[in-house]
Amino acid sequence: MRNIGVKVSYDGTNFNGFQSQPYGRTVQDEIEKAIKHLSGENIIIIGSGRTDAGVHALGQVFNFHTSSTIPTERWAIALNTRLPKDIVILDAWNVPDNFHSRRSAKRKTYRYTIDMGKFPDVFARSYRFHHPTKLNAEAMAEGVRHLIGTHDFTSYTSIHSTKPHHIRTIYEAYFEQEGGALHLYITGNGFLYNMVRVIMGTLLWVGQGKLKPDDMKRILEGKLRSLAGPTAMPHALTLMDVEYGEGGVADHLNSSMDEDDE
Amino acid sequence: MRNIGVKVSYDGTNFNGFQSQPYGRTVQDEIEKAIKHLSGENIIIIGSGRTDAGVHALGQVFNFHTSSTIPTERWAIALNTRLPKDIVILDAWNVPDNFHSRRSAKRKTYRYTIDMGKFPDVFARSYRFHHPTKLNAEAMAEGVRHLIGTHDFTSYTSIHSTKPHHIRTIYEAYFEQEGGALHLYITGNGFLYNMVRVIMGTLLWVGQGKLKPDDMKRILEGKLRSLAGPTAMPHALTLMDVEYGEGGVADHLNSSMDEDDE
Repeated sequence: MRNIGVKVSYDGTNFNGFQSQPYGRTVQDEIEKAIKHLSGENIIIIGSGRTDAGVHALGQVFNFHTSSTIPTERWAIALNTRLPKDIVILDAWNVPDNFHSRRSAKRKTYRYTIDMGKFPDVFARSYRFHHPTKLNAEAMAEGVRHLIGTHDFTSYTSIHSTKPHHIRTIYEAYFEQEGGALHLYITGNGFLYNMVRVIMGTLLWVGQGKLKPDDMKRILEGKLRSLAGPTAMPHALTLMDVEYGEGGVADHLNSSMDEDDE
Repeated sequence: MRNIGVKVSYDGTNFNGFQSQPYGRTVQDEIEKAIKHLSGENIIIIGSGRTDAGVHALGQVFNFHTSSTIPTERWAIALNTRLPKDIVILDAWNVPDNFHSRRSAKRKTYRYTIDMGKFPDVFARSYRFHHPTKLNAEAMAEGVRHLIGTHDFTSYTSIHSTKPHHIRTIYEAYFEQEGGALHLYITGNGFLYNMVRVIMGTLLWVGQGKLKPDDMKRILEGKLRSLAGPTAMPHALTLMDVEYGEGGVADHLNSSMDEDDE
């Protein structure tokens, strides 16, 4: 049996999230259907993490074990011809037997995008949160820097998180302006359920002047969800990238990638 | 009665074009419904030109006469709250009584976008034509330059054009690369039915090596639609801008904006 790693992009608008659910259309179901159609195998793929309903991905990763003889480099093209328009496979490669797309992951990067235009960009409406009133982008940039490092992110995760602890490491977090769009890029060793969206909802309060940049630190240290702002809308969130160690070999003991995710 | 000019953007994916039709959802119908809802008036708006089913607009212009007392600067916000997600009004301003968004127009700019990536960008799939095999972008850029100037564009228009003559002026036509996207920008005093799409379909033949750049000129001079390439798909075409003279005053005699359009 080969173990194949796959990079996939999807428009989350019409999905009830990545992972199979008792109801609703999911990315995982569509991919498993395409694999069944292609190789005849009933395979359960392993995603690097869930993404919630409405959340998009530019570089989600999954892996699966197959007995098929289809050459690895053919999988991307062959699956794309069998997938709906809102899923595009970008790459497929051989990975070691013990590679597990969730447990082997080292870093993930998410992007959250605000449309600051007076009126929304009609072509990006499904991918950006429209906020027409003034935001203090400098204050937001200062605020998010307080989250870099290893912290207990209880304040910035959903109360529905099922994890035993909420300690995660944020390696990078910064804003970037692109025309009327304001992107937050955030990279960490793992993200808790709704973590980026709660961080963004709180940063919006900073941008609106309801909180000061330093309050991001105070809220973090309070370890109480109710201190933070609202959970920002899902449709402006995109999983950009999942990174693995050399050769994609698993290093499960040091990974925090055992969680709910966005 | 005031005469109001309006700039509107729309995602053409789910429209049967701009102009009202006996069947199908149109941008004009949605806007007229929103006006009726807002001011109670049964108004027929005047668009700067039709766009075909599937074609988008970033800067379409229309005008309408109203007896309503709603201040001009309120129209954009008020209409947007009454319009579906795929139409966004960008601006509204007072225009002279004799302003006519089609007849007064001086220049129009269209953009046609090719996605040259190995796999399509899933987020731009509704706005770009995916062409995964190699294109000679330099040859296409050279080819399109033969169309600049005042010419009879019979070869590059649909045989269903209803116009008495096909002489139009192209002021500018050039390609611009942006990541994996190749944009054609083309500005003229007017465009015939399917004109940009036939030009693009022919330029794709140039990019594929089926034609030489000079053939664009030969085809132009042949004045026969059958000499040119296929009509490129509508979903990658966007009306970017419509320009008017000083004060938007009509100058009907010199305008070619009396046509079918894209």
